[in-house]
Amino acid sequence: MTQALRLGLVGLGAVGAATVRRLQEQADLLADRAGRPLQLVAVSARDAGKNRGVALDAYRWYADPLELAAAPDLDVVIELIGGAEGTARAVVTAALTQGKAVVTANKALLATHGLTLGALAAQQQVPLLFEAAVAGGVPIIKTIREALAANRISQIRGVLNGTCNDILSRMAREDCDFPHALQAAQAAGYAEADPTQDIDGYDPAQKMTILAMLAFGVALTPEQVKRSGIRHLTRHDVLQARRDGKIIRLVACATQHADGTIHLSVAPEMLLPHDPLAQLQGPMNAVIIQADLVGQLILTGAGAGGDATASAVIADVLDVARQGSACGNPFPVKLRT
Amino acid sequence: MTQALRLGLVGLGAVGAATVRRLQEQADLLADRAGRPLQLVAVSARDAGKNRGVALDAYRWYADPLELAAAPDLDVVIELIGGAEGTARAVVTAALTQGKAVVTANKALLATHGLTLGALAAQQQVPLLFEAAVAGGVPIIKTIREALAANRISQIRGVLNGTCNDILSRMAREDCDFPHALQAAQAAGYAEADPTQDIDGYDPAQKMTILAMLAFGVALTPEQVKRSGIRHLTRHDVLQARRDGKIIRLVACATQHADGTIHLSVAPEMLLPHDPLAQLQGPMNAVIIQADLVGQLILTGAGAGGDATASAVIADVLDVARQGSACGNPFPVKLRT
Repeated sequence: MTQALRLGLVGLGAVGAATVRRLQEQADLLADRAGRPLQLVAVSARDAGKNRGVALDAYRWYADPLELAAAPDLDVVIELIGGAEGTARAVVTAALTQGKAVVTANKALLATHGLTLGALAAQQQVPLLFEAAVAGGVPIIKTIREALAANRISQIRGVLNGTCNDILSRMAREDCDFPHALQAAQAAGYAEADPTQDIDGYDPAQKMTILAMLAFGVALTPEQVKRSGIRHLTRHDVLQARRDGKIIRLVACATQHADGTIHLSVAPEMLLPHDPLAQLQGPMNAVIIQADLVGQLILTGAGAGGDATASAVIADVLDVARQGSACGNPFPVKLRT
Repeated sequence: MTQALRLGLVGLGAVGAATVRRLQEQADLLADRAGRPLQLVAVSARDAGKNRGVALDAYRWYADPLELAAAPDLDVVIELIGGAEGTARAVVTAALTQGKAVVTANKALLATHGLTLGALAAQQQVPLLFEAAVAGGVPIIKTIREALAANRISQIRGVLNGTCNDILSRMAREDCDFPHALQAAQAAGYAEADPTQDIDGYDPAQKMTILAMLAFGVALTPEQVKRSGIRHLTRHDVLQARRDGKIIRLVACATQHADGTIHLSVAPEMLLPHDPLAQLQGPMNAVIIQADLVGQLILTGAGAGGDATASAVIADVLDVARQGSACGNPFPVKLRT
């Protein structure tokens, strides 16, 4: 068997811990599938003392993630810190600059700086992979980049935010107002203390920006998304929708029209019950792709959660291990003039 | 730009013609995405005179597909003849033996001789890719082999045969008996003159054998599938199902139990309307994968048709062009003792 692929992991939240756990518990299976062992060498997180339910003493601990990114004995840096700026950006930039492959789940970073980082990866001839950045365990990035590469995609439409989905489900199920449903979602761990990113639609806007750049090959920013969240929805809105036989979901959409113009939106929509997006519950995501050869392709699965997202993170690592992914620019987009 | 990837294509039915058409009409787009031009060099089919709605005079014509497989200036042979034995098998074997990559849509060949051909490809260090062999344009092979490679899969369940789906839809819609619905499906071009492969479940049994080998890493044959078709279903059966609020679909299933035993089946099932397999119409396929990290992942899309299947064929060619697919054995299975 060939040399081990040496991994460093930055950020030990739910996804990071689940990734470490799988690397430990299924080492043989993963080595079989990779054609070489995956060897976690180093980890970094803010709090060294925190119990994450997974043994970390076999790995070098870095208090400074930038030192991990610079460690000369790593092949891949897995970035699970999050955030468009600051540490995450510095870690990814440093790792790529030093010729390391990067696997990241960071939608904010890619939606904002994907073009710059993609160009850097291409220049360095190293993979920059980010399946986990959109729709958790649903392989939407690979599907667009690889499986549908013979197609012209005209539209991507999806439910990409589990928090909003959970809140909207609760409002309908419990016949309650938005603030109550938000509180319940927070208590259940489905919504964060500061829920703005989710309920105001910033999160799905970032995700759809990434998908649209990949699908249409055009440079886009999250600011171009016509964005409306669910904060203003009332119990009455949900009730009225139900009376009309409809279901409200926060839908993200990217359309390229025949003249080449692109329209990006995130907004609550009243869906008929048979719409593939209408029946999604909790953290489930679905993406409907309209493509010229294949017609309509729908992917449905867990859009959040440590394990589901770790599935995507490790799939990317396996792609690196197999040299499975092109080292070309992952955002081969045209800059719009 | 790097050297062109030189293609030879054998079999010019609906899928072959659609593949040639896309290579012609989107040459620039495909070259961009491949990182190099895709150059169709040679074609072969039984009838040189037949009008296939696509210009073929730019390509070398081979009356003998084995001569095409042996042509020294080809990098990839695309096999779209079909059938487990005879010409298709000989062409694929010859191409791999001579170090050429092979892209095929041939489910019968892979279900029966996949292990032998996979071992040959691994030995020759060339890719053998077959996304189009199962579920047409739905990227189920790539999803199992790559996107879910960090998971243990416990079950795959799907509607994999469009012909049966069309017949069952007709029986329900038109309240007619099986022979009438079959005739109508034949008249509409959805069923072949000899429909045995479809209506007796041989076709989905072959497809599920391939998926199960990939998911479970165990050698399997189509004969191990407990198979029952739809020939015996009556108008009364369909009517009774509807009275019970259910919908009949031909469901293929592969389950690996906790003790490692594998159960493969193809049989009509009475489904509740909200089952993701229940609402599929015509050539639509769906596959539900149960995996330990990701939970349930569902892929839904066109399982047949020239364009949709050509989408999968060309995606495989692009993977070859980008060196995107591992050259390892595509069937890294354990032989069962």
